[in-house]
Amino acid sequence: MSFPHPLEQLRATEIHCARDVIVKANPGILIQFRSIFLQEPPKAALTSFLTAEHGGTLSASTPRPPRLAEVQYDTIKANKSHEYVESTVDLGLKKEISRQVYDGTKQPSFTLEEFKSLNEACMKSKMFQEAVSKFKLPEGFVIEIDPWPYGGLDHDDPAIRYMQGLCFGKDTRNGNPDSNHYTYPIPIIPVMDYHKGEIIRVDKLATGGTGDGLAYNTNSANVLDHTRPSEYVPELLDVKLRTDIKPLNVLQPEGPSFQVSNDNLVEWQKWRFRVGFNPREGATIHDVHYDGRSVLYRLSLSEMTVPYGDPRPPYHRKQAFDFGDGGAGRAANNLALGCDCLGVIKYLDGLLADASGQPSVAKNAVCIHEQDNGIGWKHTNFRTDRAVVTRYRELVVQFIITLANYEYIFAYKFDQAGGITLETRATGIVSVVNIDPGKTSPWGNVVSPGVLAQNHQHIFCVRIDPAINGYNNTIFREESLPMPMDINTNPFGNGYQVVSQPVATSSGFDASPTTNLTVKMSNTNVRNPISGRPVSYKFTPPATQLILADPRSTAAQRAQFAKHHVWVTAHKDGELFAAGKFTNQSRGERDGLADAVARNENTLDSDVVLWSVFGLTHNPRVEDWPVMPIEKIELHLRPADFFDRNPALDVPGSKNPTSVLVDGKDSCCSEGAKVQEAPESHRQSSQDIPLKDSKL
Amino acid sequence: MSFPHPLEQLRATEIHCARDVIVKANPGILIQFRSIFLQEPPKAALTSFLTAEHGGTLSASTPRPPRLAEVQYDTIKANKSHEYVESTVDLGLKKEISRQVYDGTKQPSFTLEEFKSLNEACMKSKMFQEAVSKFKLPEGFVIEIDPWPYGGLDHDDPAIRYMQGLCFGKDTRNGNPDSNHYTYPIPIIPVMDYHKGEIIRVDKLATGGTGDGLAYNTNSANVLDHTRPSEYVPELLDVKLRTDIKPLNVLQPEGPSFQVSNDNLVEWQKWRFRVGFNPREGATIHDVHYDGRSVLYRLSLSEMTVPYGDPRPPYHRKQAFDFGDGGAGRAANNLALGCDCLGVIKYLDGLLADASGQPSVAKNAVCIHEQDNGIGWKHTNFRTDRAVVTRYRELVVQFIITLANYEYIFAYKFDQAGGITLETRATGIVSVVNIDPGKTSPWGNVVSPGVLAQNHQHIFCVRIDPAINGYNNTIFREESLPMPMDINTNPFGNGYQVVSQPVATSSGFDASPTTNLTVKMSNTNVRNPISGRPVSYKFTPPATQLILADPRSTAAQRAQFAKHHVWVTAHKDGELFAAGKFTNQSRGERDGLADAVARNENTLDSDVVLWSVFGLTHNPRVEDWPVMPIEKIELHLRPADFFDRNPALDVPGSKNPTSVLVDGKDSCCSEGAKVQEAPESHRQSSQDIPLKDSKL
Repeated sequence: MSFPHPLEQLRATEIHCARDVIVKANPGILIQFRSIFLQEPPKAALTSFLTAEHGGTLSASTPRPPRLAEVQYDTIKANKSHEYVESTVDLGLKKEISRQVYDGTKQPSFTLEEFKSLNEACMKSKMFQEAVSKFKLPEGFVIEIDPWPYGGLDHDDPAIRYMQGLCFGKDTRNGNPDSNHYTYPIPIIPVMDYHKGEIIRVDKLATGGTGDGLAYNTNSANVLDHTRPSEYVPELLDVKLRTDIKPLNVLQPEGPSFQVSNDNLVEWQKWRFRVGFNPREGATIHDVHYDGRSVLYRLSLSEMTVPYGDPRPPYHRKQAFDFGDGGAGRAANNLALGCDCLGVIKYLDGLLADASGQPSVAKNAVCIHEQDNGIGWKHTNFRTDRAVVTRYRELVVQFIITLANYEYIFAYKFDQAGGITLETRATGIVSVVNIDPGKTSPWGNVVSPGVLAQNHQHIFCVRIDPAINGYNNTIFREESLPMPMDINTNPFGNGYQVVSQPVATSSGFDASPTTNLTVKMSNTNVRNPISGRPVSYKFTPPATQLILADPRSTAAQRAQFAKHHVWVTAHKDGELFAAGKFTNQSRGERDGLADAVARNENTLDSDVVLWSVFGLTHNPRVEDWPVMPIEKIELHLRPADFFDRNPALDVPGSKNPTSVLVDGKDSCCSEGAKVQEAPESHRQSSQDIPLKDSKL
Repeated sequence: MSFPHPLEQLRATEIHCARDVIVKANPGILIQFRSIFLQEPPKAALTSFLTAEHGGTLSASTPRPPRLAEVQYDTIKANKSHEYVESTVDLGLKKEISRQVYDGTKQPSFTLEEFKSLNEACMKSKMFQEAVSKFKLPEGFVIEIDPWPYGGLDHDDPAIRYMQGLCFGKDTRNGNPDSNHYTYPIPIIPVMDYHKGEIIRVDKLATGGTGDGLAYNTNSANVLDHTRPSEYVPELLDVKLRTDIKPLNVLQPEGPSFQVSNDNLVEWQKWRFRVGFNPREGATIHDVHYDGRSVLYRLSLSEMTVPYGDPRPPYHRKQAFDFGDGGAGRAANNLALGCDCLGVIKYLDGLLADASGQPSVAKNAVCIHEQDNGIGWKHTNFRTDRAVVTRYRELVVQFIITLANYEYIFAYKFDQAGGITLETRATGIVSVVNIDPGKTSPWGNVVSPGVLAQNHQHIFCVRIDPAINGYNNTIFREESLPMPMDINTNPFGNGYQVVSQPVATSSGFDASPTTNLTVKMSNTNVRNPISGRPVSYKFTPPATQLILADPRSTAAQRAQFAKHHVWVTAHKDGELFAAGKFTNQSRGERDGLADAVARNENTLDSDVVLWSVFGLTHNPRVEDWPVMPIEKIELHLRPADFFDRNPALDVPGSKNPTSVLVDGKDSCCSEGAKVQEAPESHRQSSQDIPLKDSKL
């Protein structure tokens, strides 16, 4: 019998085992499973194991962290009341070893099954049907409802598990199930008591424009009369697809340069790391080493919040926490070959659990492939005109999530110069509401007649658990500051100083491009042999706008993490979520970053965690309709005196023999060869240079 | 006889003609030519022509702007004194039509021939030889000198044309001319009077570290004893090249999707523009249209300054203006097939002139190719699991310049969603000086023993001459601002407002990420039919650090443009250079952006020009040695209510048949087809899911 690696996802047999343990531990009780996944070992236990693994001393007798499953489920009483429970099952002992029962103030995230129940509830709700009947939909239109989390609670009953729905008409006349219903927004929002399975309220939405009051509504029955189709599937487009884009193929005739083992160990170009996958965070990266040296313990997308800036109630409820309210792993796309990536691709499946606790495959949820990102480094010796140039090859670990109308593409990218980039791309269909004919609005942009795309923000949080040459690290804030002109210290005024301050206690702070603020993760116990500085990785916090909501608002209170660009905390097992574990219906952030830094712990030369918050204030353009071109943000982690030279120096110069000239010639410079043409330092000077087109 | 397009570079015959006119106009006078290139027509004349061209009314009788050559040259008197002259030659009339003679306070940029003269002057200078003789170089070492512009003048004589040299040892023992000499810095700088051809001074450089005074120098003769090799050419590396990176080939079996005509008209995916090339700016982009609609009149890299932050004199003289002091076109690399780009490549030559006024080909100075940049847009209908996904194809117009030790890669990238991105990559060898054994310094980082890479900034300026649906445009500053919680206007505090202000008069302002400042170039006379807003393009000014030098310093005075991120000016013919035409030896910026905005002109609904300043504060890492991995900055221009929907909606979904799985299978989803696996909204739930590795 082989042991799974402690970071390997649960196997199907393990999910079965965990389920059975919980079912047996709750005799006669109806259980609705939410998630069963690997509970990562406590850091102390895991680092002991990893130290042995990297030290080459792993053996059958090496102590292994217990293999644990986290099981999240509801117990359902006869009166239909639910109790949310989190249990830990020791898979070795086949035993539940801990159990936490939560009251109604802690609402777990929605499962896909729950989201789907909204539609049924609406269909059988007289209240909803009555609300709908007030609208005169065009012939052949039906109602489509997109389930949404309810947002933060204000004066609502915290014991109720709410769900809300955004309503649209759908034109069935073209017979195409992929006809875009978002272009027909209907100005009502049904609100559901999930446990009762009932619609308890139907909110009426404002439809006014500039100058109209917050509740302005024409009460028109003909809310779709001024709307029109906005299709995106090719067979329904009213324009022809382009025919002038020729194939651009990525071929890797010798296969990929990476290997992926069964337990999700990835090895590529001196990098070595493991890929995890869980229902909440999607793909996670663990135990990152470069050339045998430790860089990161864990890297993950921790949370994101998407608050909408339309002040008209109940639009304040449009605030999603897509990781905490839903789950990136649950929402991960099945990535289909050739559509989402080019080249040679390795897919990883995720293993989730369904409501009965049975394993469920998220097929091809993660893809791994290489890509070329242009020139990596280049220098031309102007004396000899010899150029040495390398390409910038990246290994990409990517997953894509769909949240009703919207898509995010997340990629961890490793490069040959020791860099790690986290890339987010936002795409999909922007969230829209109805607006009266001919009006415009301060709260968004009219992207199609009758369709208001509301202004909103996307604020991401990336969790970085560094392990720079070891697990004890210190975070430094490094700033480049002006120096006044001074006859003794800066006589010509060109000098500037670089000031570095360690972050001594857990805290949050902001990006500062005016001082070129750079955040360094350093191991002060290991010095670079050349520079004498601590070995480090660094990043520039992206200076993007933080949350705009009034600090007193529920929207801001529940997203305290979005108030700073950088947070430094002392590591605590299980503290993975920037806005806290329970974001769904939260009134405020609990056990998120604000609480974590409030512990006011030492962060010097210790097991420290770094969080990077960045985002996008998205005031939609007409061009974002009906599906928006990607908007990209990148976070770059780069070595800073971690290596003793450019780590990509040993990348062979490029001499790609498959590139060709437009006229079909395929001559190619050899790596390091002198160029054939007149060098730039000795431009050919001649009266008879060949010019085909000297017709003057 | 065909006419060249008014934006076509000068042809060889035209350069000959211009030269001959100038030679004849200066009988008996010795002339040293600097540049002969197209003088772009005045905007009024060119826009008339372009309007006819785009209106389809171009004919033999259409008035054409006169075809003009700008000729820059020195007249040299018997006493060797030079006078710098700029003449305009009408090539149709074969006549000099204007002449401007400058005094010594206006120093033109250096030609490559001039730069090369430094070495000769040093070799014959007793003063220099004496300075060198004080050092005891290791056996087999010779001196290499990198020519540099002198920087800004302080108390120097403005009539002298200075040049300075950075000195290095070169180890000749390996017999390889590409052995890296920068790893052996010698702490002297010879200063040359160019016109006299003499070394007039040898500055001694400080070599101290932290705590040492500004002039500290050990006066050691053995300045290279603690240095060591830092090779980058593969045959000299002391490490083996990687052998585990497998080929990644880009193949375009049907050829490229773009066409380039003889007069440098480029057409690709609804884009249509012309590529110019001149000695100062390198490649420029003109008359940009998308689907027949005007977007930009001209796009160019205007200037960059690289001030060094080491306050020890004479390091304050390390401040290059790489466009004004040298010239990006003159420094452009010969791009060699397969080394600098992948896929199917079209090269354009630039035509320069040598010191005798003869045409000189900058062979393959510009390359044009397509590249794939990941997913362009995607949406998955969660009800049907149908995904529609397109790739993000870009057309790249790239050129690369080498400035002694350093390289910049500039790319104009056009995409299918109407976006234009200007990308800068910095690479090459960082500029270094000698530092005493064992010391570290506040002014830089020790990247190799004895080698201090000094802190510095790279500040770029991009000039954008917009033509959004016509030549009269208005610039708006759009900010997203918080709104206080208020029972009547923002009852739940989630609302925020978007405030837009036109820039009424020429001015400079700064990036503002805290307010999400977006700059819009709008045509207020043309409204988007959907949103009712003016048709626009927008960009977010990159919030990078501006110049750190004391505002009173010469370094800052001569780079006033680097004091703001955005400048708005009224168009003026020939006003192309952010730091003014004459940057070489400038004491202050003249006729640059500060002077342009001081005209305080109307910029509303007029012929307005926008300038974007961004950069990189580069405090070197050990990893930047000996050749640094690229550092990238991008400026994104994106349509904002310019189109009536996502302009990439008609891009066919991707179904690339050449992508394969790691295990060799080549199945591929067809565009729009349902995925084969269990969809994410209905995860497969089964006890017998296939798992290869369930060994527990």
